[in-house]
Amino acid sequence: MKENKYDNEAFFKKYAEMERSKKGLSGAGEWHELRKLMPDFKDKKVLDLGCGYGWHCKYAAENGAKSVTGIDISHKMLAKAEEINQDPVIEYRCAAMEDLSFEENSFDAVISSLAFHYVSDFGELVKNISQWLKKGGDLVFSAEHPVFTAYGSQDWYYDKDGNILHFPVDNYYYEGQREAVFLGEKVTKYHRTITTYINTLIENGFEIRSVVEPQPPEEMMDIPGMRDEMRRPMMIIIAAIKR
Amino acid sequence: MKENKYDNEAFFKKYAEMERSKKGLSGAGEWHELRKLMPDFKDKKVLDLGCGYGWHCKYAAENGAKSVTGIDISHKMLAKAEEINQDPVIEYRCAAMEDLSFEENSFDAVISSLAFHYVSDFGELVKNISQWLKKGGDLVFSAEHPVFTAYGSQDWYYDKDGNILHFPVDNYYYEGQREAVFLGEKVTKYHRTITTYINTLIENGFEIRSVVEPQPPEEMMDIPGMRDEMRRPMMIIIAAIKR
Repeated sequence: MKENKYDNEAFFKKYAEMERSKKGLSGAGEWHELRKLMPDFKDKKVLDLGCGYGWHCKYAAENGAKSVTGIDISHKMLAKAEEINQDPVIEYRCAAMEDLSFEENSFDAVISSLAFHYVSDFGELVKNISQWLKKGGDLVFSAEHPVFTAYGSQDWYYDKDGNILHFPVDNYYYEGQREAVFLGEKVTKYHRTITTYINTLIENGFEIRSVVEPQPPEEMMDIPGMRDEMRRPMMIIIAAIKR
Repeated sequence: MKENKYDNEAFFKKYAEMERSKKGLSGAGEWHELRKLMPDFKDKKVLDLGCGYGWHCKYAAENGAKSVTGIDISHKMLAKAEEINQDPVIEYRCAAMEDLSFEENSFDAVISSLAFHYVSDFGELVKNISQWLKKGGDLVFSAEHPVFTAYGSQDWYYDKDGNILHFPVDNYYYEGQREAVFLGEKVTKYHRTITTYINTLIENGFEIRSVVEPQPPEEMMDIPGMRDEMRRPMMIIIAAIKR
């Protein structure tokens, strides 16, 4: 199932109000970690899966990429990307990442920010990426953390006065569809374990270069609620190399 | 701090009643996964850190190891190991794994079962293991899962009627000491993130071969409470190769 929530008008509007939408990379709490793991883009052919507003495409372009292909399922997101993150080397294309087809060895680097948890068949996706990447090529992606996706609601557990008690984990080993609420809308996500994220990569010919559960950066700690982000992991970033 | 809880008489007695103590490897819910990741022991020099009753030492010996050094902090555990898991190639030695010192390239394989979460300085331990291992050597270990160690109590969260609601996660990014209750006794454990477990290995010259959060095996599902083990990960197994 390929859901295209971002073409929903209300959802798209609320997404536009997020820090990461207004400020770009510097508004994303995980960017300080993701940036460290980004490959050297100089003269590289880059594929961005679920590129959204195109911030990461633009970053790759600004860092010398030869070409950047930005893929997103949402026309609205891509229209915004064309508007604010255009570049001669970037080509934006509207498609579900599950439906893509490229020649073998088409890319030097594949990146993806917070999109793989919308994909039902991770094994099939990684198999494809492995074929599209040249030997020695980089895959760097962030996704929602399995601790964050397991239970479903993606909300804290509160006491009767509305104070956070802890974060609930349940059904961890039952992978698959979860109905979460994001920006006030029901969104379908797919939970999978850490085991699945990592071993699917290894089994498809990748070497793990780094696994990072990004903590909020010190300079964002004054933002209301940000210190709570120290209490449970929300994202996982994996950097891997195609053997 | 090196705690030696297993030399506490009451604790030792209760440990003796566990399935994994009475039945050995086949009584351990993670063995079906750990076994798959065990290296080929034929003619290998093996180090087992936190060997306990010596079941894994014996397994290595039975699978052709040239020598097996079993290390445990508890005299009582080692006395039991000498009694039930003796072998001409096995040498049991009483020590805290933090205090060990070996020549470089002393071992072909280092194994450890559910002991590393008792170690305060994981970085120092991995640095040592990396030196003790020959190039191409194996490190395979299980430890309590960060989801299991984060909160502290290591118990489910219940409703007022005593039914399990979910498993609580909290303070995930605050690594360090936790006071848990195990077999009715207070035990000191050390929480660290998935990031720390994996990247500490990579930074010390290891390649990640596999990361597995073991699920209970189908044939144990009839044991009371075992199906609840599908609701949150309790252990993590990591297999790595020294480059």
